[in-house]
Amino acid sequence: MAGCVFCKIVAGEIPAAKLVEAESVTSFLDVNPVNLGHALIVPKRHLMSLLDLTDEELQAAILVARRVAAAVRGATGSSAFNILQNDGRAAGQVVEHVHFHVIPRHHSDGFAFGWRQLSYKEGELSALLQAIKKRL
Amino acid sequence: MAGCVFCKIVAGEIPAAKLVEAESVTSFLDVNPVNLGHALIVPKRHLMSLLDLTDEELQAAILVARRVAAAVRGATGSSAFNILQNDGRAAGQVVEHVHFHVIPRHHSDGFAFGWRQLSYKEGELSALLQAIKKRL
Repeated sequence: MAGCVFCKIVAGEIPAAKLVEAESVTSFLDVNPVNLGHALIVPKRHLMSLLDLTDEELQAAILVARRVAAAVRGATGSSAFNILQNDGRAAGQVVEHVHFHVIPRHHSDGFAFGWRQLSYKEGELSALLQAIKKRL
Repeated sequence: MAGCVFCKIVAGEIPAAKLVEAESVTSFLDVNPVNLGHALIVPKRHLMSLLDLTDEELQAAILVARRVAAAVRGATGSSAFNILQNDGRAAGQVVEHVHFHVIPRHHSDGFAFGWRQLSYKEGELSALLQAIKKRL
């Protein structure tokens, strides 16, 4: 799509530090990484959401993500990684072309997810469970 | 594995708000959610890392994750979600049995990833690129 930076990278119109070029998926280093070695895995078709991918595209993307994660972990000497997909603006998606992040992690690397633990009120969990199951 | 809370849920030894029961994967609601509707997708075999899963197990897990994400998004009226896998302690993995998080997201829900943008010094990106490519 015109104006989409990931489509331009897929088309080779702007340069990128490419890691993997597969049939339906490409992968390259993020130039503004959360940690050095932070990579992006990008299905080639211009789709906003993970929900829009075919099963085959999604399966290809997660296999490439894992392959890249292992290589990035080795190359950066890190002991850990996150695989993250932000789907929608409220989830932190900035480029509106579906992608996974692979972020190598080190102890005390200063990156924190701001994790929190909420709890359910009486009856709230079972009601939500039923509402989700109806949609599965 | 004895002592693993996810293995106990898989075995039905402790209760859980189950969403999906597939051949190699199970999914249930996190009782201490980041946001209400936060779900976990858990391959049944006791493995610590995503790197230990077979391709088939990984592909099954991501398809279940997406199916759950769509249902949770609908049931919670959210516009967005994160799919997240923390691999290793330095990445925030607490339960040492591989799992994906599906977290429904809302604008101004108060959950933030603490995103940051580092940059590469002269020559650093190309050196790292080569080091990763050697391991792919």
